[in-house]
Amino acid sequence: MDIATLRSRHHDHWMRAAAIRTLTLDAVAAANSGHSGMPMGMADVATVLFEKHMKFDAADPQWPDRDRFILSAGHGSMLLYSLLHLTGYADMTLEQIRNFRQWGAITAGHPEYGHAGGIETTTGPLGQGIATSVGFAIAEESLRARWGKKIIDHYTYVIAGDGCLMEGVSQEAIGLAGRLQLSKLIVMWDNNGITIDGKVSLSDVTDQKARFAASGWDVFECDGHDPDDIDRAITAAKASPRPALIDCVTNIALGSSAQDTSKGHGALTDAQLIADTRTVYGWDHHDFDIPADIRDQWAAIGRRGASDRAEWDIRLRTLSDAKQAEFARQFAGDMPKRLSAAIRALKKQVTETAPKVATRKASEMALEVINPIVSETIGGSADLTGSNNTKTADMGVFDIESRKGRYVYYGIREHGMAAAINGIALHGGLRAYGGTFMAFTDYARPAMRLAALMGVPSVFVMTHDSIGLGEDGPTHQPVEHLAISRATPNTWVFRPADAVEAAEAWELALTTKRTPSVMALSRQNLPTVRRTHSQKNLTAQGAYVLEEATRKRQVILMATGSEVEIALKARELLEAQGIGTRVVSVPCMEIFAQQDESYRKKVLPAGPVRIAIEAACRMPWDRWLLGERGSEKKAAFVGMTGFGASAPAERLYQEFGITAEAVVEKAKALL
Amino acid sequence: MDIATLRSRHHDHWMRAAAIRTLTLDAVAAANSGHSGMPMGMADVATVLFEKHMKFDAADPQWPDRDRFILSAGHGSMLLYSLLHLTGYADMTLEQIRNFRQWGAITAGHPEYGHAGGIETTTGPLGQGIATSVGFAIAEESLRARWGKKIIDHYTYVIAGDGCLMEGVSQEAIGLAGRLQLSKLIVMWDNNGITIDGKVSLSDVTDQKARFAASGWDVFECDGHDPDDIDRAITAAKASPRPALIDCVTNIALGSSAQDTSKGHGALTDAQLIADTRTVYGWDHHDFDIPADIRDQWAAIGRRGASDRAEWDIRLRTLSDAKQAEFARQFAGDMPKRLSAAIRALKKQVTETAPKVATRKASEMALEVINPIVSETIGGSADLTGSNNTKTADMGVFDIESRKGRYVYYGIREHGMAAAINGIALHGGLRAYGGTFMAFTDYARPAMRLAALMGVPSVFVMTHDSIGLGEDGPTHQPVEHLAISRATPNTWVFRPADAVEAAEAWELALTTKRTPSVMALSRQNLPTVRRTHSQKNLTAQGAYVLEEATRKRQVILMATGSEVEIALKARELLEAQGIGTRVVSVPCMEIFAQQDESYRKKVLPAGPVRIAIEAACRMPWDRWLLGERGSEKKAAFVGMTGFGASAPAERLYQEFGITAEAVVEKAKALL
Repeated sequence: MDIATLRSRHHDHWMRAAAIRTLTLDAVAAANSGHSGMPMGMADVATVLFEKHMKFDAADPQWPDRDRFILSAGHGSMLLYSLLHLTGYADMTLEQIRNFRQWGAITAGHPEYGHAGGIETTTGPLGQGIATSVGFAIAEESLRARWGKKIIDHYTYVIAGDGCLMEGVSQEAIGLAGRLQLSKLIVMWDNNGITIDGKVSLSDVTDQKARFAASGWDVFECDGHDPDDIDRAITAAKASPRPALIDCVTNIALGSSAQDTSKGHGALTDAQLIADTRTVYGWDHHDFDIPADIRDQWAAIGRRGASDRAEWDIRLRTLSDAKQAEFARQFAGDMPKRLSAAIRALKKQVTETAPKVATRKASEMALEVINPIVSETIGGSADLTGSNNTKTADMGVFDIESRKGRYVYYGIREHGMAAAINGIALHGGLRAYGGTFMAFTDYARPAMRLAALMGVPSVFVMTHDSIGLGEDGPTHQPVEHLAISRATPNTWVFRPADAVEAAEAWELALTTKRTPSVMALSRQNLPTVRRTHSQKNLTAQGAYVLEEATRKRQVILMATGSEVEIALKARELLEAQGIGTRVVSVPCMEIFAQQDESYRKKVLPAGPVRIAIEAACRMPWDRWLLGERGSEKKAAFVGMTGFGASAPAERLYQEFGITAEAVVEKAKALL
Repeated sequence: MDIATLRSRHHDHWMRAAAIRTLTLDAVAAANSGHSGMPMGMADVATVLFEKHMKFDAADPQWPDRDRFILSAGHGSMLLYSLLHLTGYADMTLEQIRNFRQWGAITAGHPEYGHAGGIETTTGPLGQGIATSVGFAIAEESLRARWGKKIIDHYTYVIAGDGCLMEGVSQEAIGLAGRLQLSKLIVMWDNNGITIDGKVSLSDVTDQKARFAASGWDVFECDGHDPDDIDRAITAAKASPRPALIDCVTNIALGSSAQDTSKGHGALTDAQLIADTRTVYGWDHHDFDIPADIRDQWAAIGRRGASDRAEWDIRLRTLSDAKQAEFARQFAGDMPKRLSAAIRALKKQVTETAPKVATRKASEMALEVINPIVSETIGGSADLTGSNNTKTADMGVFDIESRKGRYVYYGIREHGMAAAINGIALHGGLRAYGGTFMAFTDYARPAMRLAALMGVPSVFVMTHDSIGLGEDGPTHQPVEHLAISRATPNTWVFRPADAVEAAEAWELALTTKRTPSVMALSRQNLPTVRRTHSQKNLTAQGAYVLEEATRKRQVILMATGSEVEIALKARELLEAQGIGTRVVSVPCMEIFAQQDESYRKKVLPAGPVRIAIEAACRMPWDRWLLGERGSEKKAAFVGMTGFGASAPAERLYQEFGITAEAVVEKAKALL
C-alpha cells in the first residue's frame, strides 16, 4: 500500500505512527547521530501493537503481569522512547527525547535497562533481545503455572531485525523456544531487506519463515504498514499454540528519500530530507511538537491498561496474606529469611565431616539446601547436567507438560542459555542459574557482559575451571577466563576452595540484586580447607586469613579454589623449615577490593614475601602481588603462562609447575 | 540394517570400520577417558569417505590441493586419529594411539592443529569446525579462481554432531556458506539423536534438513551404516551446485550395550562391555591389534591419492617459475619482499603530511598500500564495512560470479566471520582479516581463542575501541576487551596511536606466521604523533620512547592509541611547569614483554612517577605500573573503572576524567 492510500484509509493510525516517525527524525537530528530508519519502518507495527494488543499501564511500569515489549533491534531506540513518551511513562519526558544520546539523559543510544520504566532489557548488541526474550517467556510460563492465570498471564513481544536473525544466538533462541513451545512469545521481524552494508541479499539468502518453522514455530506475515493486516497477524500469532514469528514486510526509513537504502539505516540529519519527509507524512508541526489530538490519542492508549491493572490488583488481594507476601518477596528479589540459617547449618555440617569433593559437587550440595528453600530458582545446563552438578533432587524439569518444573535442559546453547538466564531474572519473580564448562565463558560472553551492565543477578555456574579438568585438553581448559570475568565491571567471580566457601558464595550470589556471579568450580576433588566453623560468611570479605603463620610471618600465600590446597601444603613445608607462612584464601577478588583499606591491610600487610597461586594467567594478581603494599622484589606467581595440554590433571600440575614444591622454592628464593 | 546383515553383506568394509571402532574402544579404555560413541557411530561414514572420496596422500599431509577433512565433533577425536593411523600418516603411530590423552602425545583429547598431519584445525568447542570449514571452502573457491582448477580443486568435508548444529555459530556458518554457494563444502551430520543430557529431543526439535535448505543448501540423507547408501549420498552431494548437508542416520556407540544412549557418548571403559562389543563386531584380536589384511586394505587407501599427488606436482611445474615461486611463497605464508619498503614509504609520507585521522582510517591507508602488493589477502567485515574501513579500492567482492574478489560481506556474523578467517588462514595460500566493533570481541571470542591456540595469523580488525565511539553507549563501548585479548596467550593486541603505528602494526601482523593479531582502532580522529620518520618498525619493540623529557625526568607517561594524544598534551603541561616528562607509546604490550630486559629497562627506568593512560580497565597495566621496577607509591592509572555511557566522545572523556589535566594532577600528587 502506498503512503497516500495509507494516509487516507487509516488517517488516525497514520498520524499516531507519524508522531513516532517525526520524534525519531527530530531526536536523531538534534543528536546528530542515531538510527532513523528502523523506527520509521516499524512505527506502524509498534503503533498497532501498543494500541490494540499490549497489556500495559504506563502509570505502573513495574506491574508484574504486564506484557513485555523487547526491542531486540536496539539501535532503533527512538521507537521505544517515542512509544514510552507518547503513552505517558512518567520518566520519558519530552526533555529526555530532546536530549537523546546526551550525557545524563535516560535516552541512551541503545536502550539501557534501569534508565526508564518500559525498558525491559538492554539491547543493542544484536540478537541479545530475542535471546533474552526466551527467558522472559520461560519465566511467564513458570510463574503462570505457579501462581495461576489470574496472577500471571502475559505475552512477550519482540521486534527483531535482520541483524538479530543473522546472529548465531538467534538460532539458539529459536531452537530453545521452539522446543519448549513458548506460545506466548511473539517475534515481529522487521523484514526491510536492508543492513548497514547494503541489501540483506549481499550476505544472506535465508528463508527466515522456513527456518523458524523448522524449529517448531508458527509463522505469520503482514504488510508492516497496513494497520488492519498487522492487527490480523498479531491476533493470529497470539492464538497460536507455539511461539510465533510475524514476518512484517516494511520499508526502512519509510517516506524519506533514503527509504529502502542502507543510508536509511543510519542517522538522517539532512534538513531538507527531514522537511521533505514531513511533507510526505502530512506532518505540519514544529520539531518535537505533537499536536494535542494525537497526544490525546496516545495518552488514551497509555491508560488503556489501567483497569486491567486495577482488576489484577484485586485478584492479587484474593490470595492469602502469606501468598501475597511471598509474591512480593519473590518479585522484590529478596531471599527467604531461613536461607541464612540453612547455609550456616550446611557449613557446620561440612566443616565437621570435611568431605573431599570437587567444588562443582560442593556447589550441588549448596543447591540441594537452597532449592527447597528458595522456590523461585530455575536451574539448567547447556547439556552438561551431570558435569555441572546443577540439577537438584526436587527441581523437576521445566517442559511443555510440566511448567512447574524448575530445571531447563538448555541444549548445547551456552550463549542462548546465558541470555535466557538474564531474561528470567529480568522478568522478576524468579532467580536463574545455568551451567557449562568455564572455557565456554567465551560462548556466553555477550550475554554475561549484558548481565553485568544491566546489574542483573544471573548466576553462571562454570565448572571444570582450570587445567585440573585434565585430558580434554587446552580447548576445554580455561586459562584467561578468570581474568576475563574479573576484568568485567560489576561481576563477582567466585572461586571457592571447598564446600564451605561454595555455600558462602551461593549465599552471596543469591542475596545480591544487582550483580551477576560467576561460580568457578573444579572438576577434581578438593579437601575441605575450612576446618573451623564460622557463623560469619567469610567469603563476604572476598579474601581472609585461612591459616596463620605459627612463627614470624615471612611469607603470605594467596590462592583460590583448587590451588588453596597447594598453598596449605606449601605452608606446611615452609613452616617445617622455620619459615612462618600465612595462607590467604581469595574466593572473590572483586569483593575483597571493596573492603575497607584497614581490612585489606590486615589480610595483606606489607613486608612478607607474597606468592599468588592460581592455575590461570597472572594478570589479575599483579594488583595484589606488586601493589596494595606489595613489592616486585618480594613477589612471585605460580600459575599458567600459556595454554594447557591434554593429560591427566596431576601430571599437568606437575608439568606446569603448579606445586607446593615450586611455591616453596620461589618463596625461599625471594627471602 | 542390523549389524549381522551389514557384517555379511559388506564384510570387508565392516572390518575396516571395525578397526576404527576397536581402536577407539582400546584407546579410550587405556586413557580411561574420552568419547567412544561418536567414532563408533560414524566409522562407516568415515571409512567410505576415505576409501572412495577423499583426495589425499598420507605421505604428504601438506599437499595444497588435498581435500580437507574437518572433525567438527572434535570430542570424537579417536575417529580422526584412527583414520590417520590406519591410512599411514607417519606421525600417527600406534604408540601415539596407545598414549591417547597423555602428556606429550599428539593424540590430545580433542584434535589439536599442529600436533599431526591431517589435523586441519583444532576442534572440540562445538560448532567451531563447521564454522571454520566455511573459511576453508572460501579459500578453495578463491584459490581455484586464481590458480585454475588444475592447481586447486578440492572438497572440504566436515563431520558435525548435534551439538555443533545447536551452537549458534553453526547458523552463521550455514547462512554464509549458503549465500556464497560454496558448493564444495559437504557437511556430514552425525544424526544419532543423542547428547550428553539424553536424547536430542530433550532440548531440540529442529528439522535440520529444513533449516539447511532454508539457507540455500542442498540436502541429502543416508543410512549412516550402509556403505552403499553412504557412497551414494556423498556422490550426490559432490555433484550438488550448492553446499550440501548429508543427514547420516547413525547409532551412537553402535554395537555396544550403550548404543543409542547418552552413556554411549562418553568413555566406555567397562571391560565386559568392550569384550561384548568386540564379539558383536566379530573382532577377535588383542587390544590395539589390527590384523594384517585389514592393515593392508587401509594402507592401500592411504596410498590411493599418491598418483593424483604426483600428477598435481607435474601440473604445478607447468606453471612459470615465477608463478611457482609465488605459489610457494603464498603457501609458506611469507610476505612479498617489497612490502617492507612500501610500508616504510607510507610511514614517511604520513610522517610528513601528519594527517589527523581515526586509526580505523589509518588502518585503511595501510591496507590500501598492502592489498595491491599482498595479493593473497582476503578482507571482510561483519556488516560494518564503512565503519571498519576494511575494504580497499582494488579488492573486488568475493561472490558467486566473482570468486577472484577479495572482500567478503560476512553479514552480521562476527563469530562466523572470525572462524571463517581462521579457516582461510589454515587452508594456506591466503591471509585473512575481518572487522567488527571491538565490543563485539565478545561474539567472536571462541574463534579468536582458537586462532591463538592454533597459532594462526588471523587479523581481527576491531574498530570503535573505547568510549571514544561516543553516543552508541556502553553496549558498544569496550572497557574490558583490551584486557580480554591481552590475557589470551599468543595474541598480539595492537593499539596504534596514529597512521605510522598503524602501518607498523599491519606489517607485523602480516609478517608473523604463528600469532593472531587484534587491531584496536579508534573511531575518532587522532593527530599524527610520530613526527620524525624512522626506517625501523618501532612497534616491533612493543613500546618505545615517543617523546623524551627535556629536563630531569620525573614522570613517565605510558599510553596507547587515542590516549597517546592525551599523554603528549599532559607532557606539555608538565614540562611547562618544570617537570621533566617522558612519553612512552605502547602499541603492543605483548611484544614489549618479549623484549630484552635491558631494552625494557631503558624504556621504563626505575625512579620516575609512572602513569598509564588508557580508556579501558586497568588490569593489564599493573605489571608496568607497579612492577618492572615501578612502585605503588609512584604509580597511577587514568582510565575506566566501570562501563561507559551514551554521549558525545569529548564529553565522555571529560566525565570519566581521562584528560591531560587529570594526568597532570595525578602526576603532581605523586611527586
